[in-house]
Amino acid sequence: MPHDIRILTEADLRGLLTLDLALVDVIERAFAALAGGQVVMPPILSMDLPAVNGEVDVKTAWIPGFDGFAIKVSPGFFDNPSLGLPSLNGLMLQFSATTGLAEAVFLDNGFLTDMRTAAAGAVAARHLAPRQVQTAAVFGTGAQARLQMQAAYLVRPFERLLVHGRDLARARACADDLAAALGVRAEAVEDPAAMVAQAQLVVTTTLARVPILRAEWLHPGLHVTAMGSDQTGKTEIAPEALARADLYVCDRVSQCEVSGELEAALAAGAWARGTPPELGQIIVGSHPGRVDEDAVTICDLTGTGVQDTAIATHVLSLAGVAGVTVRS
Amino acid sequence: MPHDIRILTEADLRGLLTLDLALVDVIERAFAALAGGQVVMPPILSMDLPAVNGEVDVKTAWIPGFDGFAIKVSPGFFDNPSLGLPSLNGLMLQFSATTGLAEAVFLDNGFLTDMRTAAAGAVAARHLAPRQVQTAAVFGTGAQARLQMQAAYLVRPFERLLVHGRDLARARACADDLAAALGVRAEAVEDPAAMVAQAQLVVTTTLARVPILRAEWLHPGLHVTAMGSDQTGKTEIAPEALARADLYVCDRVSQCEVSGELEAALAAGAWARGTPPELGQIIVGSHPGRVDEDAVTICDLTGTGVQDTAIATHVLSLAGVAGVTVRS
Repeated sequence: MPHDIRILTEADLRGLLTLDLALVDVIERAFAALAGGQVVMPPILSMDLPAVNGEVDVKTAWIPGFDGFAIKVSPGFFDNPSLGLPSLNGLMLQFSATTGLAEAVFLDNGFLTDMRTAAAGAVAARHLAPRQVQTAAVFGTGAQARLQMQAAYLVRPFERLLVHGRDLARARACADDLAAALGVRAEAVEDPAAMVAQAQLVVTTTLARVPILRAEWLHPGLHVTAMGSDQTGKTEIAPEALARADLYVCDRVSQCEVSGELEAALAAGAWARGTPPELGQIIVGSHPGRVDEDAVTICDLTGTGVQDTAIATHVLSLAGVAGVTVRS
Repeated sequence: MPHDIRILTEADLRGLLTLDLALVDVIERAFAALAGGQVVMPPILSMDLPAVNGEVDVKTAWIPGFDGFAIKVSPGFFDNPSLGLPSLNGLMLQFSATTGLAEAVFLDNGFLTDMRTAAAGAVAARHLAPRQVQTAAVFGTGAQARLQMQAAYLVRPFERLLVHGRDLARARACADDLAAALGVRAEAVEDPAAMVAQAQLVVTTTLARVPILRAEWLHPGLHVTAMGSDQTGKTEIAPEALARADLYVCDRVSQCEVSGELEAALAAGAWARGTPPELGQIIVGSHPGRVDEDAVTICDLTGTGVQDTAIATHVLSLAGVAGVTVRS
């Protein structure tokens, strides 16, 4: 039986979707559902292609109460830059949660992933950062560094923003962009220890494979969100920092154990506190989360299929008549 | 960087693709590659959704020498018929094998799966059936029964065709359709034992969960292709038949062990011959296959990701300017 399928390009999606509190709320709802136990989220299908220096990941999750579910395909082909092409691209498919019929194809080139990742940072900050954040800081100077700070500002409207990166000029450009976008004071900082010392909220957004944030830099009243590590071998936070913090929280324990900060801490024998709580448990109140303003908290975001389903369902609800409709 | 992605509907694809020897050859090449050991074919991502009586499978495979690779999504939502909707649908995505960029979306509603499944039947018949097939027979009266007989005729142009199904009227309609399509004598047969006794090539295309073909019906000079079982619990061939045949061949051993005829035979303790050969080994000549015209052979097709990649690559090569092109 023919039915209509909507095709939306990256340009269409950028016209529809804003990084705002409505998006943060939808992503929060997805994490809350994850704590409820009725989400179906199979392990990631991962295909390594050493012959072409590539990999392909497929993620999906079905969330009770959501109209649809997404299947996201994320290819990474690391010889592409030599051809003038991006290493990463990707798209999402949206299906009806009750009939399984395909409803939409989002040719987003990773845009929706960027946005749902930033929104997860805001969810983590909302539930784990100190109530008062005067200064926020970010490691990294790319698109996700900008988005994470814009997302954090929605829930913790800080006055001052610091940026650290390996390239000071790029850090300055990132700070300038964010100062303009948010109307806050923003500056690049060469010394990462000095930057962390001044901040109440730190977000790490790098591809680091050796830690960039040391355990001895942790100080009372600090929250750190580490969103860079999403694969075995990546790590941004020193293993000892996880145990030194008052609270370490995973987006999904089973993923953090193999591809997040917990992986390196377990490998280093630096974690002996058993199973950490998940962000969803703190959202629904089954774990207390931050207990006072002086606590030190760390949230580890590896990226989950529920976020994809949540943002895909959200953007389709906003789509109106945008895009191309194909009858199939 | 924007690039063009082709969107092809089921109608577009039906206009492009014919069940012919070119398609059979492409599918054969995919099975041959599977024997070569350089194919990357991850385990199927399978998501069970008991809350909505549904399931979703995702298959993929990367084949050296093919321009692209496909990712196929197959939802099955079994309450759909009560809504006037089909239980099964599905689509495929095609990506460049060297850059990972999305190239095409095939909104095929399962049409490409039907075609690549039929073509696999022809590959099995070409390499395993006796050279002379005077009479072919099929269990089942649906779309795949018709396609399997049309595919078999390409490689073994039989004179006579027999159809058995639970509903004699449907078996007659299927026989009449095939007689018209192929220009052969075709008739419905009520007694399955009598049907098998007359045939040199039998294809089973049912959703059976108890065997419909008994071991004692096997006779010299018979080849059976069982393509119906593709899930745990499905079975068409009596467990004893596998061991009684001179040769039992899998499309993919790892799949047949959990979702094919081998599953039931292993569970019944009726298989003690170790690891069976795969169809690809017979194609490339690393296993002798049928050794004489009187041998009894069985081929078990559970459906593989290489077939999806092969048909997707093939149909895209035929596409010309068909479909809608979206820049993303």
